[in-house]
Formats: sequence, structure tokens, C-alpha cells
Amino acid sequence: MLPVGRSAEREVKVDGRHYRSIWCAGEGQAVEVIDQPRLPHLFEVRALESLEDAAQAIESMVVRGAPLIGAAAAYGVALAMREATSDEALERACRRLLSTRPTAANLRWALEEMLAALRNRHRDERVEAAYRRAAQLCDEDVELNAAIGRHGLAILQDLASDKPPGQPLNVLTHCNAGWLATVDWGTATAPLYLAHDLGLDLHVWVDETRPRNQGALTAWELGHHGVAHTVIADNTGGHLMQHGLVDVVITGSDRTTGTGDVANKIGTYLKALAARDNAIPFYVALPSPTIDFSLGDGLSGIPIEQRDPAEVSGVTGRTENGDIARVEVFAPGSAVANYAFDVTPGRLVTGLITEAGVAPASPEGLAALFPQRARAATQQR
Amino acid sequence: MLPVGRSAEREVKVDGRHYRSIWCAGEGQAVEVIDQPRLPHLFEVRALESLEDAAQAIESMVVRGAPLIGAAAAYGVALAMREATSDEALERACRRLLSTRPTAANLRWALEEMLAALRNRHRDERVEAAYRRAAQLCDEDVELNAAIGRHGLAILQDLASDKPPGQPLNVLTHCNAGWLATVDWGTATAPLYLAHDLGLDLHVWVDETRPRNQGALTAWELGHHGVAHTVIADNTGGHLMQHGLVDVVITGSDRTTGTGDVANKIGTYLKALAARDNAIPFYVALPSPTIDFSLGDGLSGIPIEQRDPAEVSGVTGRTENGDIARVEVFAPGSAVANYAFDVTPGRLVTGLITEAGVAPASPEGLAALFPQRARAATQQR
Repeated sequence: MLPVGRSAEREVKVDGRHYRSIWCAGEGQAVEVIDQPRLPHLFEVRALESLEDAAQAIESMVVRGAPLIGAAAAYGVALAMREATSDEALERACRRLLSTRPTAANLRWALEEMLAALRNRHRDERVEAAYRRAAQLCDEDVELNAAIGRHGLAILQDLASDKPPGQPLNVLTHCNAGWLATVDWGTATAPLYLAHDLGLDLHVWVDETRPRNQGALTAWELGHHGVAHTVIADNTGGHLMQHGLVDVVITGSDRTTGTGDVANKIGTYLKALAARDNAIPFYVALPSPTIDFSLGDGLSGIPIEQRDPAEVSGVTGRTENGDIARVEVFAPGSAVANYAFDVTPGRLVTGLITEAGVAPASPEGLAALFPQRARAATQQR
Repeated sequence: MLPVGRSAEREVKVDGRHYRSIWCAGEGQAVEVIDQPRLPHLFEVRALESLEDAAQAIESMVVRGAPLIGAAAAYGVALAMREATSDEALERACRRLLSTRPTAANLRWALEEMLAALRNRHRDERVEAAYRRAAQLCDEDVELNAAIGRHGLAILQDLASDKPPGQPLNVLTHCNAGWLATVDWGTATAPLYLAHDLGLDLHVWVDETRPRNQGALTAWELGHHGVAHTVIADNTGGHLMQHGLVDVVITGSDRTTGTGDVANKIGTYLKALAARDNAIPFYVALPSPTIDFSLGDGLSGIPIEQRDPAEVSGVTGRTENGDIARVEVFAPGSAVANYAFDVTPGRLVTGLITEAGVAPASPEGLAALFPQRARAATQQR
């Protein structure tokens, strides 16, 4: 199923070993994740041993990225079942996990999948069933992303065929929609990894993505895979597009409405405007669990998470001595706001790259690819 | 001449004392400036004692902001004359200073003013004449900015009259076009300080302005003057505009073409696009020495400075202990690009707020306000 490209390269992900972003360890009931706020400075694995561990890992962005949040929530339910298997415990677990992040659509989707798998099952079977369903959801995510990769690859190959020989295809991406944000492959990065493995001459502009600098994760991923890339301040993309230095923009999505509006990391909308102003294609790569068919207008319908102002007022990084430290950028006394996402209207999106194909960012476009889900949502409204 | 508002407040700028951003000290021949990279953490004054001191202060952004760069370059010529007063020394000084920063128009303008004041003067008179002309240029800059403040104030008052009672006028600004970037008042901030002093209910969204975080300077200025403000990541402005949280954008300019294209801090173009998409007025405040009438198209005509990648790959701030330290944000091995400015096409600019009034950002608009300079440039082409 997986288009693995040159497998030797795929294996060399982190210190010679292939990782997913979440996995079962030990007797198969401990869940382990990569401690993402320590990246790119330290690669550390963290064990999640309880519902509360999982919830806090999502809240504190130890795990982040809409698909990985869904996977971590699924395992969070499994961990909760180890503690108690009653209907109440199941509902409490889902409520706790749903409260962690308000914007990502996969979170609710994954919890509904877990509920469906456990609700009518005998309590004695719930632990095993929960682990099994969580593992399935993870495997499905990997397959979705691989399929997104194949559809996106065709777009990249098409654009590359218009480039003069010897000039790389320049892709700009915002935030980290890489394998760290999913279970594997990534959404926006899946086409990039495939294209690179097939020998396509590629260069990626990586937005640093303040305030949390997820661009550092994207750069770290691309670097470990050998993909040529350049880190830039978030302010830079417009200038690059004005000067013909960007051929295509690809981002991920935390929630997409049935009309094609895309909630993604704050600042995505600004890049979409610049792409439109410079006639550059702007694609969003997303697995269908990210689509919320119950929503029409994204601007009014998608709740935008506001996070701790401390994420904006300071920056964490590596000191000269190799320690991880935080420095304050602003003088005390200034108010700080920290909106985590914005909504890019579908009118600015060239296409939505899903596992089922590339759809126009419109109600008709999405309904054509996902007729059942679109119809069900219309009937519910 | 100066509309000083409530003078008591104007005086309380830094620790109870009123400062300009550059001044003569001691016997009147030493030049002192505020060491801006130390702000907002430390307020330190640095003495410039030679041509090379002045040139390096501009290069390293100890002084920054187009108008202040011009003022520092003027004093740099005066310092050079203390070392040698020959025609050769004068030309060498101008060449050295002109090489420091490629984008700001005031730099060339100030050097031409200094050359005009010194060229046909006896060598014995050059030192005194240089200091006199530099001081005049500084005083003129203060007057220009005060006049910009008055013209901008009228715009703010007009917009505020449309706001429901009890709701502040929300202004967004990018980078620091404050008094620290000029000799006094600032360009984009002059209307804000005037409006605040007149009691207008005002709130300013301050873009942090990566990579050098000049938003920390703007927040520091506004805080010391008592203007309500909120710091945001550069990615945030579009979201705020989509949700009606911005009434007007005002930025400064490093160089403006005779056709109204505006080179300003990288990322300005993205905010102009968002303002246009949300029908929000986007103004640029600039003294006329920032206008380069010799240029038509800004995108092809204005050289965009590329600075040290280290400005992007790390951040300097204040540690828990109060020390100033730098942390690296990215893993080693990633390429980093650092474009310092971008060009906002005049079509996206609602108006240019100059000392002579508010002009449409067009050849006709600028020619109507500055007919002599526009005519001279046309004849030269």
C-alpha cells in the first residue's frame, strides 16, 4: 500500500532508525511519543501512562498537528480504559480529551470513532478493543497520508515540468504538516518526500511559524530526509512570491469546512493572499477526517484557540552551551495576544489535496469526492 | 511649531527624561545615540567618536529606521571632518556611509545634503559647518514628523468618529516607525502620540516584526508614553482584520518611489494585502526625504538588503536572571535567508501621510504634493 520510495532513505529518519510519531511500547499497553517541544534540539521519547498524561501531552503540545492529536486522543481513551472501563469512565475520558484543543477537527472525529468502537462492547473487552481501534486509526492515518502524497506528487511533477532545466521547484510551506504532525509521512510533506525520493529537483522555503516555531520541526524533518530547504521569517513569503521564487504553496489544515474554508496555523491566510496576488497555486493537503462537513462559513464557524501569551513574549532555544533556555523578547508590561489559527477562505485555495483526490475548495468540490459525508451533513442541518 | 500635546507626558519618555534618538554631547562634538539592540531590556547610551563608529552603528543597527539612519550618516560626515577635512576625506566618508545600508532612501539624501553644505566651503570651516548642517537636518526631521503627526491625526479622528462609543480605535503597525526610528516623534507613531495626548481612545496592535523584533521597540515606546497596545506575532494581523479588530494600518517606509510603491520592513506587503482583502485603510507615514522620485516600479527598482542569516536562526532576549542572551531556534545544517524589506505596490496603499499632506500612492498624487521634485526627476530620466 505504501509508496515507500527508496526504502533505505525512508529508514534513515532519526539517528538511523525509522520512527512514527506515536507507538505502543513494552507490553503493548504503554504509549510513547516524541517530546516535540524539545525538538529540534533534543530528540526525546516520552511515555504516556494515563488518560491525564495523554490530555496534558495534547494541551502542552508535546504532541501537536491535527492528525497526531487525533491519534493521541485515541490512545488517550485506551489508557483511560486501563484505569476504568465503565460507560462513565469512557464518557469522562472523551470529554477530558475533547477539551484539550478547540480547533482541530480530527480530535472530535477520533473520539467519535473510539466511542463507536467501545460503546456497545462488554466492559471486559474494552481495553483490548480500545488499543486495537487506536492502532487501526494510526495505520489508517499513515495510509491517508501516503495517498495524499501520491495525489500531491502529480501536482508537483506537473509544475516541475514547466521549470527550465536545472532550476528546482520551489515550494513554500507554513508550520509543520510533516510526519511529526501526523502518524507518518505528513500531509503537506508527503508529496515532498515522495517527489524527493523520485529524484525531483526540489527546494522548500520553510516559514519559521511564530510563535511556536514549528518551522524548526519542518526544517529538522526535511534535513534528516535530505530535502533541500531554507528557513525564512514568516514575513518573507510575499517578497519571495513577488520575485518568482515560489512555484507553489502547500500547507496542512486543522479543520476544513464543507465549503472549503481552511483553518490552519495563524498566518496561513496571509500566504494565501500573497499567492493569489502573484498567481501562484496555493494547495492545502488534508486527510478527510480534518473535514467538518457540519460547518459552512469557516470564519464564523470555526473556534480559534487562544493560547498562553508567554508563547509570543518569549522564545525557547539552545544556548551556546547546548542548554535549552527561554529568553523574553519584550519589556514587561505590554499586553500580548496569541491566536493560534486563522481561516483561509476557500476562494483563495487552488485545491484541497485529500486521500481521495484533489478537490476544488468548494461545497461542490468536496461533495463530489465525499458524497456520503456531504449528504449526511446536509440532512443533519 | 511642535504640537507638543500635554507637555508633561511628552517629557516622561525614559526614566523621567525626554530623549531624542541622537544628540550632541560634551563639548558639542561627541555624538551620542541610544544602543537600540539592547532595548527593550537595557537603556544604554553609546558615544560615536569617529566616522567608523558612525558607519558601524548604522550597519549593526545600533541606530536604525530610515530617518535616524539619515541623521546618523549626517553626523558621521561631521565626525569624519574632525579626522580630515580634504575633498578626498569628504568623499571617502560619504562612500563609506552610503555602503552601510542599501535600501533606505534618507541615507543618500542626507549625504547629498551634507555634500552640498560642505563641498564649496573652505576646509577650515568644514567641521563647524558639518555639525551645524547635521543638527539642522535633525531639527528638520523632528518638524517633518510633527507635521506627519498632524496630518495623520486628522485621519485617526475621522475614523474614530465612526466607532461606537466606548470602543477604542484599533490601529495595527509593523516594525518600529517610532521616535526611536527617527530623531523624534516617529513617522507612523506621530499621529498615535498626538491622538493619545488629545484623549482619543486608542489601542495599537504591535507586530513583533521578526527577525529583529523591532515590535519590542514599538511596544517599549508606546508603554513609556502610556498608549494602550498589544503585541502579536506577525502572522496574526490577517486574522484580526477578518474579525473587525483592526480599523486602520499605519506603517513607515524606508524608500517610496515616485509612483507610490513603498519599501518597508519585510512583511509589510502581507499586511497591505490583508487590509485590502478586508476593506481596511492602509496608510504609510513618511517624510519626503524617503521618497525617491528617480524610481518608477519599486519591485524592480529598489534594492532589497539581505542581512546575516543569524538574525533569523536565533533570537536575543532577557534570561530569567536578567542577562541578555541569544538562543538558537533551528537545528544546525538548515540554510537560512534573511530579506530585510519588501515592496508594497502603491495600488494597495490608501494614502501616503507626508509632512505636506496626505497623497494618493500614485505618480499624480505625489507630483501634486511635491511638484518641483517630481518635475526634476522626470527631466533627469
